[in-house]
Amino acid sequence: MSGAILRGIVSYPITPFTAQGRVDEALLQDIVERMIDGGIHAIAPLGSTGVLPYLSDDEREAIAELVVKQVNGRIPTLVGVSSLTTERTVHHARHAERVGASAVMILPMSYWKLTPEEISSHFDKVARAISIPIAVYNNPATAGLDVAPETISRLLEIPNVTMVKESTGDVNRMHRLVQLCGRDVAFYNGSNPLALAAFVAGAKGWCTAAPHLIPKLNVELFEAVERGDLAGARNSFYRQLPLLQFIVRHGLPRAITAGLELMGVPVGPLRAPLLPLAREFVDELRQILVDLEVPVR
Amino acid sequence: MSGAILRGIVSYPITPFTAQGRVDEALLQDIVERMIDGGIHAIAPLGSTGVLPYLSDDEREAIAELVVKQVNGRIPTLVGVSSLTTERTVHHARHAERVGASAVMILPMSYWKLTPEEISSHFDKVARAISIPIAVYNNPATAGLDVAPETISRLLEIPNVTMVKESTGDVNRMHRLVQLCGRDVAFYNGSNPLALAAFVAGAKGWCTAAPHLIPKLNVELFEAVERGDLAGARNSFYRQLPLLQFIVRHGLPRAITAGLELMGVPVGPLRAPLLPLAREFVDELRQILVDLEVPVR
Amino acid sequence: MSGAILRGIVSYPITPFTAQGRVDEALLQDIVERMIDGGIHAIAPLGSTGVLPYLSDDEREAIAELVVKQVNGRIPTLVGVSSLTTERTVHHARHAERVGASAVMILPMSYWKLTPEEISSHFDKVARAISIPIAVYNNPATAGLDVAPETISRLLEIPNVTMVKESTGDVNRMHRLVQLCGRDVAFYNGSNPLALAAFVAGAKGWCTAAPHLIPKLNVELFEAVERGDLAGARNSFYRQLPLLQFIVRHGLPRAITAGLELMGVPVGPLRAPLLPLAREFVDELRQILVDLEVPVR
Amino acid sequence: MSGAILRGIVSYPITPFTAQGRVDEALLQDIVERMIDGGIHAIAPLGSTGVLPYLSDDEREAIAELVVKQVNGRIPTLVGVSSLTTERTVHHARHAERVGASAVMILPMSYWKLTPEEISSHFDKVARAISIPIAVYNNPATAGLDVAPETISRLLEIPNVTMVKESTGDVNRMHRLVQLCGRDVAFYNGSNPLALAAFVAGAKGWCTAAPHLIPKLNVELFEAVERGDLAGARNSFYRQLPLLQFIVRHGLPRAITAGLELMGVPVGPLRAPLLPLAREFVDELRQILVDLEVPVR
Repeated sequence: MSGAILRGIVSYPITPFTAQGRVDEALLQDIVERMIDGGIHAIAPLGSTGVLPYLSDDEREAIAELVVKQVNGRIPTLVGVSSLTTERTVHHARHAERVGASAVMILPMSYWKLTPEEISSHFDKVARAISIPIAVYNNPATAGLDVAPETISRLLEIPNVTMVKESTGDVNRMHRLVQLCGRDVAFYNGSNPLALAAFVAGAKGWCTAAPHLIPKLNVELFEAVERGDLAGARNSFYRQLPLLQFIVRHGLPRAITAGLELMGVPVGPLRAPLLPLAREFVDELRQILVDLEVPVR
Repeated sequence: MSGAILRGIVSYPITPFTAQGRVDEALLQDIVERMIDGGIHAIAPLGSTGVLPYLSDDEREAIAELVVKQVNGRIPTLVGVSSLTTERTVHHARHAERVGASAVMILPMSYWKLTPEEISSHFDKVARAISIPIAVYNNPATAGLDVAPETISRLLEIPNVTMVKESTGDVNRMHRLVQLCGRDVAFYNGSNPLALAAFVAGAKGWCTAAPHLIPKLNVELFEAVERGDLAGARNSFYRQLPLLQFIVRHGLPRAITAGLELMGVPVGPLRAPLLPLAREFVDELRQILVDLEVPVR
Repeated sequence: MSGAILRGIVSYPITPFTAQGRVDEALLQDIVERMIDGGIHAIAPLGSTGVLPYLSDDEREAIAELVVKQVNGRIPTLVGVSSLTTERTVHHARHAERVGASAVMILPMSYWKLTPEEISSHFDKVARAISIPIAVYNNPATAGLDVAPETISRLLEIPNVTMVKESTGDVNRMHRLVQLCGRDVAFYNGSNPLALAAFVAGAKGWCTAAPHLIPKLNVELFEAVERGDLAGARNSFYRQLPLLQFIVRHGLPRAITAGLELMGVPVGPLRAPLLPLAREFVDELRQILVDLEVPVR
Repeated sequence: MSGAILRGIVSYPITPFTAQGRVDEALLQDIVERMIDGGIHAIAPLGSTGVLPYLSDDEREAIAELVVKQVNGRIPTLVGVSSLTTERTVHHARHAERVGASAVMILPMSYWKLTPEEISSHFDKVARAISIPIAVYNNPATAGLDVAPETISRLLEIPNVTMVKESTGDVNRMHRLVQLCGRDVAFYNGSNPLALAAFVAGAKGWCTAAPHLIPKLNVELFEAVERGDLAGARNSFYRQLPLLQFIVRHGLPRAITAGLELMGVPVGPLRAPLLPLAREFVDELRQILVDLEVPVR
């Protein structure tokens, strides 16, 4: 199986809720359709943007099934299956495979910092339980655990662990992965403001929630790099950078939800303790969208 | 209601598991008895040491009930009820009150970093749902969120939020709490190697898992400070410091479990992905316990 | 030679300048007298407070000679002789010995981070060039180099390297020194807000610029700890803490200079690029001094 | 006056010493010639690589004069004139202008952390004293002071402050400069492993000591970016990356000196307390150079 089964823009949908706090399945289907229409290359439900850790097991399973079904093979699906315990991670990984996910993504979450041996053992157990590809996800800012490039390199020796999403926001970490794992390593960038630097460093893709708002700009940047158009890539990057910085600064669920509302897509409440974006920041976001010629209310 | 309903050594039991991975209720009862015999002043199930975030809701409820029943009013109980969502936190807080906990402790856990408003709203909702006292728990190293002294100060204005456990390991944060909230603020130290400095700075208690192994030394330090015996407190502190540093360095569940095994109390496996303490560290721990005249195998 | 030739309050004078930017020798003599009158136990010219790195070699030599002469053996003198190069450090150490300093203090300054071998070699060369005691000074915030406790421990094996001033502001570093070097290690605290915690941890003294403004309070804290009066020490500490935090937050030369002016001691300009404390902070400082019953204009 | 008077590879010579510890002027001239022969685009004596802070005023002036004379207008010269005090910085800036430097570079060095006002005032005074262009240099790792992009942006409003060298190693800081100062801002990258990312982000040049060892590879990377050859730039970058990481990890003076010795250019001792690169690292460096087909002994 080829390692990099994903390329380009890997889009992370939010999990929308109804006013009663239940997952809004119809709206989630609609968001998936909008993303595919926008030209993105893969879709990744149940990520950080999808507030995975705030969902019940039942909700997680319903979302995985719904999104895979909605996509219906048009593009690959990368389903998040992270849990604090190995047992629950295996459970969700098996479920994702069963419902037809193209691959699963696993963030080694931590409360107690995991040792490299614990991380390896965790991935090893999940990898043996399924046969679809696994992406390692490193995101110290949300997971509270920083997986060293050397550890990632060892994880990539497990047969179906074939991809890594790096969200530290330090391009040097990507350089190190290339040095440790070779120029063909299937690494993906998860830090929005690093989109240009990461592609230039060799990233196969960009994992981002920005396609909720600006899918065509995201795709444009990828395509400029693909055809070696450095000036075009730089122009596209600096154009969308204020939005990328904004959504990272305020947290993806808060910022994306506010952006969708501005675009006329009413999304329900966030799951508490998360609160909606404060009013002054909504105004700032409106201006950023206006500058990008995104139609807003 | 007086704020500081706890004083002295607040002891945190591990959650022991059977070989099959179920909570070992008999052993947990035994651990509680050993702690009370050791002279500690309060007991706090379902903390970090008790691997709270790795437990199912059912397991959490069973443990809360079991420990409160076992203690049977001999000393106060402080039950951990933290969850990522406000809804689950309220659920567990209500359950703890119902089964008779003296107070609950809440760590504002984060995946997405919470804003001060989100933290306030979270505590406010839980506080309105119960009438027993609440302790705010700040532990950035495990929770991924650092609650500023100014925010803690505002939380302490909520009527039944009356205590704060500070685990940053920086005594300056305790000074700041005293400055913001007054000399009577009921703050507790959660960083073992800071035990002496924190008591001297005015901490009402020391939240620690060390009483699994050295309860009398822990109590001795508290009592030396209580009677103003600075030289005695310093002697006691430096004597137990190597153990305190060790259990923090290796993670409390791993280190305490290994220590209990060395003392002849067979504890089952940790919950994966957590693994037992590596062999070389077990040897180091044995020597530390021998130096403290703790009988080991 | 006994290691701890200093005990208690080690007071760091500023270097006052005339309106023309020359060292104001008469005012420096006056400051020294005020400190001795205040009851402090040792005096340390040419420290961070004395803006050592901003002075020419000639100025440094003149100040060393002047202060030692003015003190005239009434209390010990600890003269700062740090330079970026080993050659200049030896030069100033020899000069300090020649003019009668009781001991010298050396901060291993860095532009390029020094390796442990480079630090050792640096101290070794200076130690061989003089026969008075040497204090190692660790202050990463100003020096840009953090000397590990293990390295300090090795430096203390050099015969006339007998003291260490720790300014990291982390009491755990002091615990570590005691563990590595024994309970009699002559360590001094250089972080003002850590004054109480450090004395309780076993510090022989407190290196501070605060005696320019509140010498009696500084001495009172030391004496309370000396007689084992924990409650008295805590009261004294919290009383002076706002001033200690203020002078650290704004930089000692800026804050102390402003404080002296408020007390009616006109000090000249700081050496550029340092500028006087901004007006709003002077007002804040005035209020802090008023609260401490220091007579201000 | 155009802002970006420099473009491409800005090469930083070491300061070589004779066995007696004096500046080796003949060897410095030789190093300059080798760099120009290597095709680099500008030369920058008295930088961090040139151990500026370890030199006496006389040595600094001699080196500035010597290098400018040797270059003799063939390429621009950027002379480092940083000092802790404003007075000495002005002195050296005037000297550099007098001897014919094309521009000067100023690192706002700190012992006491400078406020934004102090930094502005410092640059303002120097800028008024000379009429050649000034480059702001931000390098927190060596200077102990991190100048925020917002402060740099204000400094660039001073008429002859026209360039900025960013050495934080975070490409996001460069993005921020472009956002604050416009797409034409003359920024230069001072973090070797960021060479590719910085050029792609719009850097006008790369400030580096690597041309002592691999000038043609350095120039090759710049030229690939210039002609929009992304694949070629990426290949060139990953090829030289191990050397770039090595010289940063071990400190430029230690690493470059060792590299020159390996290439058969005997350089004298470093200035104490700096010591030569340890033997095991010299062996590692030899292998890196061999892999790059650099002829070594």
